[in-house]
Amino acid sequence: MNALANGPSADVERAFARARALVAEDLARVDRLVVERLESRVPLIPQLARHLVAAGGKRIRPLLTLLAARLCGYAGSRHVGLAACVEFIHTATLLHDDVVDGSELRRGMPSANAIWGNKAPVLVGDFLFSRAFQLMVADGGLRVLEILSRASAIIAEGEVAQLGITGDVEADEERYLAVIEAKTAALFEAACRVGAAVAGRDEETEEKLGAYGRNLGIAFQLVDDALDYAADRERLGKSLGDDFREGKITLPVIVAIARGSATERAFWRRTLAELDQRPGDFERAVELVRRHDAIGETLRRAQAFGEAAKAALSGFPASPLRTAMLDLVDFAIARAH
Amino acid sequence: MNALANGPSADVERAFARARALVAEDLARVDRLVVERLESRVPLIPQLARHLVAAGGKRIRPLLTLLAARLCGYAGSRHVGLAACVEFIHTATLLHDDVVDGSELRRGMPSANAIWGNKAPVLVGDFLFSRAFQLMVADGGLRVLEILSRASAIIAEGEVAQLGITGDVEADEERYLAVIEAKTAALFEAACRVGAAVAGRDEETEEKLGAYGRNLGIAFQLVDDALDYAADRERLGKSLGDDFREGKITLPVIVAIARGSATERAFWRRTLAELDQRPGDFERAVELVRRHDAIGETLRRAQAFGEAAKAALSGFPASPLRTAMLDLVDFAIARAH
Repeated sequence: MNALANGPSADVERAFARARALVAEDLARVDRLVVERLESRVPLIPQLARHLVAAGGKRIRPLLTLLAARLCGYAGSRHVGLAACVEFIHTATLLHDDVVDGSELRRGMPSANAIWGNKAPVLVGDFLFSRAFQLMVADGGLRVLEILSRASAIIAEGEVAQLGITGDVEADEERYLAVIEAKTAALFEAACRVGAAVAGRDEETEEKLGAYGRNLGIAFQLVDDALDYAADRERLGKSLGDDFREGKITLPVIVAIARGSATERAFWRRTLAELDQRPGDFERAVELVRRHDAIGETLRRAQAFGEAAKAALSGFPASPLRTAMLDLVDFAIARAH
Repeated sequence: MNALANGPSADVERAFARARALVAEDLARVDRLVVERLESRVPLIPQLARHLVAAGGKRIRPLLTLLAARLCGYAGSRHVGLAACVEFIHTATLLHDDVVDGSELRRGMPSANAIWGNKAPVLVGDFLFSRAFQLMVADGGLRVLEILSRASAIIAEGEVAQLGITGDVEADEERYLAVIEAKTAALFEAACRVGAAVAGRDEETEEKLGAYGRNLGIAFQLVDDALDYAADRERLGKSLGDDFREGKITLPVIVAIARGSATERAFWRRTLAELDQRPGDFERAVELVRRHDAIGETLRRAQAFGEAAKAALSGFPASPLRTAMLDLVDFAIARAH
């Protein structure tokens, strides 16, 4: 837990920087393309979207597309448009997530909905989704189109499924994993798969990269969910306790409930199912999660998925690109955002 | 105005039924495909989406795709999937519209957000958008993909632009027309264009059908906007005065403002710009709109766009299909939903 609260070590940060450096030119092209494709005759669109894009984010998902394509020996430039497409899908999802969750912070800055209300972010999110589809249509690769359109349906299903387990203190780890696999890991997986597809690699290679992305995505979300009960607000860049406040059922809570007493279960039911929350409740939740080692359990699970992600790359010959992708797993686990 | 309040004449209703009958089998296949593609592992998705689909709607947009394809001599079955795709885009837009507008009724039934709150409709809308993209990817035609992905970006832009003129009592007809051309007419146009594209027809033919759809769509929206100040609630199937309550600037209001006195402009400013609305205000708005013949003006404009839609089909040889498409224009103008 200390490692979490302190953020990633300097080593891991350096490894992440090295991974980015390997595709620095491609990443810069992705950034330019993203800004270019945010343009619209309607000024509010780039205004609102730039707020989110400018707020940073590590661009992990487009980075995956770039690295996966290069790992597969791709030497062209289609992967730039596809990486931008992946980032657009992600950004659209963020906008709609924040509306649905009523979040006030995103990446340490006021969320779009906190500034513009709910209406514009819903519609600008739709615009970003559409731009994503235009980018993949511009690519024109049928396999690429299949991967990305399928992923975006799975993401939406995952978001609705998450709504379904919100407040459900009976939800178990299996249901939780199904939700995060859909809402988060599906895009990590697709980001990697398109890298293989654009390089024209066979199904087996695509599947390996898909497994890498999927497992990495699950690990990433597990750490994110742990952070909500364990990180300090400044490092996190979002409000600590957001998940708790919204009654979201994440692994730390599932573990704490399973290991808790009847009194504790009554507490979770009141706070998460009935959303009857009083001053001091979040502090108690953090205390319970800590007492039952639920953060530790969540991070061990993340570690296991991280190992599975690394294992999926074992068939690729050693190279700086492969090393970078392995390091990315450590980075995601050390600090997931 | 009486014609509006009384709904379409029996003649026009019969013509609409004839148009549907011409492609009855195709329409039934579209309906089956829509229901089939609503399926999901997440039960809330078909549940919520079926509520909307079951609430009816005349399926005008998919009907356009079917008629346009047949008019172009298309004998295959790709148009069925594309018509379903068009309906999915439309349904997704409705869900997000109702959230953004806070509407309580849709097609005479409680809106999805009135039943499920705002969260699920935002996410299920995203799912429907994704399904639409999967349907077009399954089609695989590159021209088709271009038309539909471009239309969906334009629709989103139009929705955001509409937000921008909401409450802006200085907005003029030109800005209003730009908004409805994007938010409504773009999908009518795309629905027709894909009909030509799927039949492999040349650019000129596609452009003619596009012009038909675009002008029809503008006429359709003009009538819809007139209805909000002129129809009785039961016929309309949505709350009369919704546009007024939300401060939407539509042509009836633009005309009434332009022709009104300083006192009247102060009234519009208070009610639409400041949204300071009191009992009796809507009745006064209806009275002002009527006094300045603003509904008449709006309907004359609709009529003109309807004529342009018909003219766009003049190059096609006379046939029952062409007649049906001409009749559809009268139907849209007589009763726009």
